[in-house]
Amino acid sequence: MKLTILINCPDQAGIIGTVTNFIHTKGGNIVYIDQYVDKESATFFMRLESEFSNALTLNEFNSGFKTLAPTYQMKWEVHKEVTVPKMAIFVSKYDHCLYDLLSRYSSGELDVDIPLIISNHDKAQSIAAQFNIPFYHIPVTKATKIEAEEKQLALLAEYKVDFIVLARYMQIVSQTVIDQYPNKIINIHHSFLPAFAGAKPYHAAYKRGVKIIGATSHYVTADLDEGPIIEQDVTTVSHTHSIKDLIAKGRDLEKIVLARGVKLHIERKTMVFNNKTIVFI
Amino acid sequence: MKLTILINCPDQAGIIGTVTNFIHTKGGNIVYIDQYVDKESATFFMRLESEFSNALTLNEFNSGFKTLAPTYQMKWEVHKEVTVPKMAIFVSKYDHCLYDLLSRYSSGELDVDIPLIISNHDKAQSIAAQFNIPFYHIPVTKATKIEAEEKQLALLAEYKVDFIVLARYMQIVSQTVIDQYPNKIINIHHSFLPAFAGAKPYHAAYKRGVKIIGATSHYVTADLDEGPIIEQDVTTVSHTHSIKDLIAKGRDLEKIVLARGVKLHIERKTMVFNNKTIVFI
Amino acid sequence: MKLTILINCPDQAGIIGTVTNFIHTKGGNIVYIDQYVDKESATFFMRLESEFSNALTLNEFNSGFKTLAPTYQMKWEVHKEVTVPKMAIFVSKYDHCLYDLLSRYSSGELDVDIPLIISNHDKAQSIAAQFNIPFYHIPVTKATKIEAEEKQLALLAEYKVDFIVLARYMQIVSQTVIDQYPNKIINIHHSFLPAFAGAKPYHAAYKRGVKIIGATSHYVTADLDEGPIIEQDVTTVSHTHSIKDLIAKGRDLEKIVLARGVKLHIERKTMVFNNKTIVFI
Amino acid sequence: MKLTILINCPDQAGIIGTVTNFIHTKGGNIVYIDQYVDKESATFFMRLESEFSNALTLNEFNSGFKTLAPTYQMKWEVHKEVTVPKMAIFVSKYDHCLYDLLSRYSSGELDVDIPLIISNHDKAQSIAAQFNIPFYHIPVTKATKIEAEEKQLALLAEYKVDFIVLARYMQIVSQTVIDQYPNKIINIHHSFLPAFAGAKPYHAAYKRGVKIIGATSHYVTADLDEGPIIEQDVTTVSHTHSIKDLIAKGRDLEKIVLARGVKLHIERKTMVFNNKTIVFI
Repeated sequence: MKLTILINCPDQAGIIGTVTNFIHTKGGNIVYIDQYVDKESATFFMRLESEFSNALTLNEFNSGFKTLAPTYQMKWEVHKEVTVPKMAIFVSKYDHCLYDLLSRYSSGELDVDIPLIISNHDKAQSIAAQFNIPFYHIPVTKATKIEAEEKQLALLAEYKVDFIVLARYMQIVSQTVIDQYPNKIINIHHSFLPAFAGAKPYHAAYKRGVKIIGATSHYVTADLDEGPIIEQDVTTVSHTHSIKDLIAKGRDLEKIVLARGVKLHIERKTMVFNNKTIVFI
Repeated sequence: MKLTILINCPDQAGIIGTVTNFIHTKGGNIVYIDQYVDKESATFFMRLESEFSNALTLNEFNSGFKTLAPTYQMKWEVHKEVTVPKMAIFVSKYDHCLYDLLSRYSSGELDVDIPLIISNHDKAQSIAAQFNIPFYHIPVTKATKIEAEEKQLALLAEYKVDFIVLARYMQIVSQTVIDQYPNKIINIHHSFLPAFAGAKPYHAAYKRGVKIIGATSHYVTADLDEGPIIEQDVTTVSHTHSIKDLIAKGRDLEKIVLARGVKLHIERKTMVFNNKTIVFI
Repeated sequence: MKLTILINCPDQAGIIGTVTNFIHTKGGNIVYIDQYVDKESATFFMRLESEFSNALTLNEFNSGFKTLAPTYQMKWEVHKEVTVPKMAIFVSKYDHCLYDLLSRYSSGELDVDIPLIISNHDKAQSIAAQFNIPFYHIPVTKATKIEAEEKQLALLAEYKVDFIVLARYMQIVSQTVIDQYPNKIINIHHSFLPAFAGAKPYHAAYKRGVKIIGATSHYVTADLDEGPIIEQDVTTVSHTHSIKDLIAKGRDLEKIVLARGVKLHIERKTMVFNNKTIVFI
Repeated sequence: MKLTILINCPDQAGIIGTVTNFIHTKGGNIVYIDQYVDKESATFFMRLESEFSNALTLNEFNSGFKTLAPTYQMKWEVHKEVTVPKMAIFVSKYDHCLYDLLSRYSSGELDVDIPLIISNHDKAQSIAAQFNIPFYHIPVTKATKIEAEEKQLALLAEYKVDFIVLARYMQIVSQTVIDQYPNKIINIHHSFLPAFAGAKPYHAAYKRGVKIIGATSHYVTADLDEGPIIEQDVTTVSHTHSIKDLIAKGRDLEKIVLARGVKLHIERKTMVFNNKTIVFI
């Protein structure tokens, strides 16, 4: 049995020794360990991967760990490697990120299940079909927004979705949905945040005359485009590039930056703290 | 005689033919030509470098060009290659950009004269001495600001300065100075603008948890950190970097991005339009 | 009528003036001009885009230009914008570049026709079908290579193919084919050439312990992986990356670097000289 | 007392637990831990930083660790944080890297002592003087090479030098010197190795027509430019760049890539294995 263990707690002496020693006594072999201390808040973070003989059950591990955690006021989660997370994709009209995620998925690059795709348009239906993934067309208008989100939440529950990817989904996700999936909704924003938050970042970048454009994948919080950043990348542009050119160049960034963010989340390499991500690589 | 010619005018048919033909009739050989049309405003921009037999004088060229320019409502400037521009450096306490510019200058990388360095602190005096450049310590306080800028302007006039580089000069330059040097004051800002404009960008970047930091060289306008961007570059960072680390990594960006911006300006490769730069490379 | 004109000739005075003036007399409006002089060989290169009233025919333009070209020993080609080039794709088992090119094609990002896909395996058949493009499975063995290439050439002729893209085609293209498509076969090599030419570059990069990996798109010549480079890009790696990781990271580079190279070729922005490319952007 | 501990040994279960537990029993608090397993060779690498009460002496720690190490066939080294390493700089005529290192040193960016600078030319004498660092001019000719290296080794011994930086030192360092400073001589090569190893890489890059140039800092081994790579970076170039331009652009890369490599070495973040570096960041 292979476990991935994520821990955070107030920083104090002996945590690493205690945890690694506990794993050792359970017959575990640590194959990965990384830790980080947020000095400002004196908070300790650790990520471990450990292999155990299958004699040990996850429950046995947990019950053992439960006795040790309180001493250090640990918050912790344990993931069994075999558990492949279930990812829902939300998309609107722009389908390049959807296409990119699905081809990475079908090529085995992303170790995830994709039980469904939800869209406020029907444009992506054929792509979903092409990859044999259930597609749900849920239009969203001011009037129907609440009702639409109820449908979405019902589907997410029905398919036991673990996290959601907004692959250029052009609707604002409401508090209700965010609260049910805290740090479990990944969005791609087509600018290097915090620059050009909100609508039409390429137009704003063109108007400002920047020499680089970027993309940002981040967890969705109540504050639009202000959630914890997972990954960012940029590319150079010049005065010769029209808005159309920026949009075309940006598509490649969006695809890669979103895919990297999703991959890190799937592999449980991200932890969120103080509206930032700790990314263990 | 080698001339660099910069032109902009309303876009219309035949400009390039007319100009290149004019140069041809003056016995000029065009060794560089690049042009750009701003579609939105239908404005035409062109940069040429042309070699002439020394029989032709700059005056002869100008008087000839004067007759041709009005037909196209051209705004134009001509630079004789031999004229090395005079650059003043303003600096405060952080001296890494000053150091970098001076070593590029002394190695011959920047084809420029540096008649003086002005600082609101005396810290850089020894560096100026080391490179044998006159140094003027002009302290600036709320009370003395106007008087201080009068001293600065007097010195800039006395030394016939063509343009000014703010090498981490931590004072806001007032309208009076900007008006006398329009698009001739280059500042380095230690973030990828428009993100983190204003004070302490590295602290803000740390707080926001960005995964890239950047630097921006731009012409100074009345709006702080909102002038035309000349050059930008970025570098990746992670949660493990403290503010101190960001500042250290950023220093390298600041040096390079400022040096590139200055070099482009010295070589008359930049034109400013609608608060953007056209950079001919 | 819009024409793209590519010229190269021995460098000499007055070329630009003469050409632009000629275009002007034909009622053309130059919307793009860029030029470059290779100092070593004193060779002049120019790219122009010019709009003409449709009264003028391509033949009229050509016959006029014919009289002017010899004076300067010009080599020149003229392309009518409406002519969309025909691109054949060769592929083997790895299909990520094929997928990427086809999705850019179907989204209208690449202004090209794709009359056929040729592969030495049948794996890509379904992808071709999905995009409704004729697919030809032509197996290649030592014994059948000559015969296979005859089939390929017959198909390329039948479909009037203008240029060929090797999208991770794992067979060496023989002199016969190259001679019929000089500087018209684009290959993607999965390293930053000249490093790691030949087979298994990711394995070689892993063994060497490089901290960056790259990809290179280039025109195919008789010397394997030594043709004129069109585009290159890199990404950072570390000791933690396995060969499998390098291959995964490299896929994104390969897709982007090949797509950029193909786009530049389609837009007639590349010229080849002395086994290098001049890329007008 | 703060210790940095570097360990490598055959990979096996329980190492991390044992080591961290040992540190815990010695009253140490681990503030940094990172580990890596080379799967191919089943070799384990670990880097730890741990704080101890000053009651514990380095000797006590070592004698304790000695009893534990053999069980796992550990190779290990321990560094007391207070010990600032002594770095010798070798330089020839190009002084941009020397300048850069010295200004980082004088600004406190590099936590190192620089007891001496050795050069086969006297050009850098004034720079050394400017930073108050002893300078030794040791000319090297075919005839005097052996003798010259004896002088160098004598000085390195006299000044108790820990490691050597070749800041564009244009002489080949002989086996004798390398043997005395294994993985303790850092060179900057002005290309992205393995491309363009050997002399005049910028000329070779120009001739090949690459679209990126790079720099590489690496440990010096008997095989020229084939030692373990510490750090690499690149920048884009185009057909418009002359060899002179490549050299100018490259200088910035060389400075940064060497400085990064030196910083990693100073902070004991590098381990060498199978002619590669493991870089703990």
